[in-house]
Amino acid sequence: MSELVQLVAQLGSQARAAARALATTSAAQTNAGLEAMAKELLAAQADILAANALDVAAAKANGQTAALIDRLTLNPERLAKCAAGLREVIALPSPLGEVLRDWQQSNGLKMTKVRVPLGVIGFIYESRPNVTVDAAGLCLKSGNAVILRGGSEALRSNTAIAAALARGLAAAGLPAAAVQLVPVADRDTVRLLGEAVGVIDLLIPRGGKGLIETVVKTSRIPVIKHYDGICTVYVDVGADLAMAEEIVINSKVSRPGVCNAAETLLVHRAVAETFLPPMGRALKARGVQLRADPAALEILLRDEIGASAASEHDFRTEFLDLILAVKVVDSVDAAIDHIETHSSRHTDTIVTQDAATAEKFLAGIDSAVVLWNASTRFNDGHQFGFGAEIGISTDKIHARGPMGLEELTSYKYIVRGAGQVRP
Amino acid sequence: MSELVQLVAQLGSQARAAARALATTSAAQTNAGLEAMAKELLAAQADILAANALDVAAAKANGQTAALIDRLTLNPERLAKCAAGLREVIALPSPLGEVLRDWQQSNGLKMTKVRVPLGVIGFIYESRPNVTVDAAGLCLKSGNAVILRGGSEALRSNTAIAAALARGLAAAGLPAAAVQLVPVADRDTVRLLGEAVGVIDLLIPRGGKGLIETVVKTSRIPVIKHYDGICTVYVDVGADLAMAEEIVINSKVSRPGVCNAAETLLVHRAVAETFLPPMGRALKARGVQLRADPAALEILLRDEIGASAASEHDFRTEFLDLILAVKVVDSVDAAIDHIETHSSRHTDTIVTQDAATAEKFLAGIDSAVVLWNASTRFNDGHQFGFGAEIGISTDKIHARGPMGLEELTSYKYIVRGAGQVRP
Repeated sequence: MSELVQLVAQLGSQARAAARALATTSAAQTNAGLEAMAKELLAAQADILAANALDVAAAKANGQTAALIDRLTLNPERLAKCAAGLREVIALPSPLGEVLRDWQQSNGLKMTKVRVPLGVIGFIYESRPNVTVDAAGLCLKSGNAVILRGGSEALRSNTAIAAALARGLAAAGLPAAAVQLVPVADRDTVRLLGEAVGVIDLLIPRGGKGLIETVVKTSRIPVIKHYDGICTVYVDVGADLAMAEEIVINSKVSRPGVCNAAETLLVHRAVAETFLPPMGRALKARGVQLRADPAALEILLRDEIGASAASEHDFRTEFLDLILAVKVVDSVDAAIDHIETHSSRHTDTIVTQDAATAEKFLAGIDSAVVLWNASTRFNDGHQFGFGAEIGISTDKIHARGPMGLEELTSYKYIVRGAGQVRP
Repeated sequence: MSELVQLVAQLGSQARAAARALATTSAAQTNAGLEAMAKELLAAQADILAANALDVAAAKANGQTAALIDRLTLNPERLAKCAAGLREVIALPSPLGEVLRDWQQSNGLKMTKVRVPLGVIGFIYESRPNVTVDAAGLCLKSGNAVILRGGSEALRSNTAIAAALARGLAAAGLPAAAVQLVPVADRDTVRLLGEAVGVIDLLIPRGGKGLIETVVKTSRIPVIKHYDGICTVYVDVGADLAMAEEIVINSKVSRPGVCNAAETLLVHRAVAETFLPPMGRALKARGVQLRADPAALEILLRDEIGASAASEHDFRTEFLDLILAVKVVDSVDAAIDHIETHSSRHTDTIVTQDAATAEKFLAGIDSAVVLWNASTRFNDGHQFGFGAEIGISTDKIHARGPMGLEELTSYKYIVRGAGQVRP
């Protein structure tokens, strides 16, 4: 235990020193570091894949699910994609040094609010080893040192990857400790990272709800959470019903296991009879299980479309699966009320041709992303043009929704005077 | 205990309902609420002062310090100042609805990042009852509901004040629960507020270090901290020494008990012999105790200026008193190094006529506010032109430095489409 404390303290002090160096590193040198990281990653392919094969074999022996094993598995194509991802980050503009605001006070003081790195980021995540590369690239580009705490299943893979990234940093003359991996699987390290007050500036946990809750419960440093998405599509009386069907299918079916997939469908009563039967058939044809409130259930069953009765709990559940909760509502106000009391403030969309109704919905829903006539699946850093994302924040503090490079920065105020003192 | 849980849960659900109403309240109606609050506050003067007299009497009976009793005491002038403060907030522009960014994606989606309230703020503070009014005004203006948890010494005063504010809100047709006071002094309420996940969006503790540490330790919701200011003045070889003396005096002496007061003076070796004797005499004349490193001590004692040897601890201490730690350094780099390893990243200033040296300092110091030729005392919301402040954040997440109205807001993304789905 005391060895673990020492280990985390050492990672922390190395990260702080690296962060100080990064704070005055030029954008060109940072990009050179990213390029060297990409090169070393590809050069280490044999080592990384060998380490990964051991992780995969252990996961199979432990009876892990096929889904986990798929997420865990690297191959030359996936590794090449990681390297390509680093090169995409090179192409993004540096967020640092941007003047967010400047003004002059009447006493002559010149104030400048300028974007600076956060400092040291602790990133805690689960089994996909490619996330190691993505997170390292985004943190470095935004001038931050990062301490990576990956899942135990991927420890061998992550160790090989982190070694390659550190070689790249050193080759480019940057501090190798800018990217460090917690080299042990001990669960206590998660708590210890959260106790590193004054050392780590921000913790970002990404993974299952249990992981995030553990971090929130034990951390004494700021955390930005990536919780669940209970996302809703509301089909208004004024909807183009063909458009609505396409949006519902895309929101629910295109990738049901991700946080921006829809979990609830609300339908205005005036179009429910017309819309629900073909919509229900289209969803059933794609293997979607329907859980409906009494009004929707009656319509679906009358048309012999398989559906079961939804419980109140179903409307508060992130299924992450081919399951959809369906409800008939009387008005856009009722839809807003349902969403404001049931959704997780992640992503909600209205389908309507009526601009006034749409604007009411867009103003009334307090979620990270609120859409009009578009799929919930657009809540994503790449789809927003951020070039990359470290996750999708469900917090309202600091960063909300897709988190790209800017969201990994802070600011400071520079004040230039001529001897002013306060009266 | 279970009654306390119920009490905090009730405050929370009332606050959430109020926050929903505030989210679509116009700026004009909010201002009407602030004006009504000011009126009711003045109308309730007799009640408030009577309640305050009981608090003051109890504090005296409990042997509280004169400083605490002064902070606790209200009188007609101080109450009038509170009401005037609310009217100053009316005059500030609303931060809400501001379009922070808008752009169009190549698929035609129109993206708008718009400023919105945080939702529900929990504000935990100590004995000054005027803070109750200030916090209520700033939170309401920024569209947030607030739950106020003041110090136990001020409970009677705060209860009378909160009742007046609630009457004002109701008179203006706003939800009275937009401003609520935790009506009991029980310490457990601090912990319970920090456990209100999904109810309170942000906790702001303001007060002594013990209070803030308690909140950080127990809270599971985001906290913005207002920790100590170990602020530094560095007098460079290139300084105008008369200007330097004025800035040091202002930074140290004008109000030694606040977080933006200087605690450390660094002096370049090349000017130490010239600068320190008159500076030391000027500080001693104002009652400042000097704690000096060996080089500074030698110079001061040689001139018979009273000073004692500084410990390493003195350079990491927020004295909040007429005490100054003094050290001689060899270069601006040594000054930066000292500050980066000893200061609390709050406020640091360089005095020099050399622009290159100044820019090196401004870039190299990662503090909320870094100044050139100006007093540390300028790290303040009013001095920054923010009109008002809820505090000075020592965090790097969300808000750093003076926190005004904008810092009490979040944002959401509004996406307007024409049926787009994700490929």
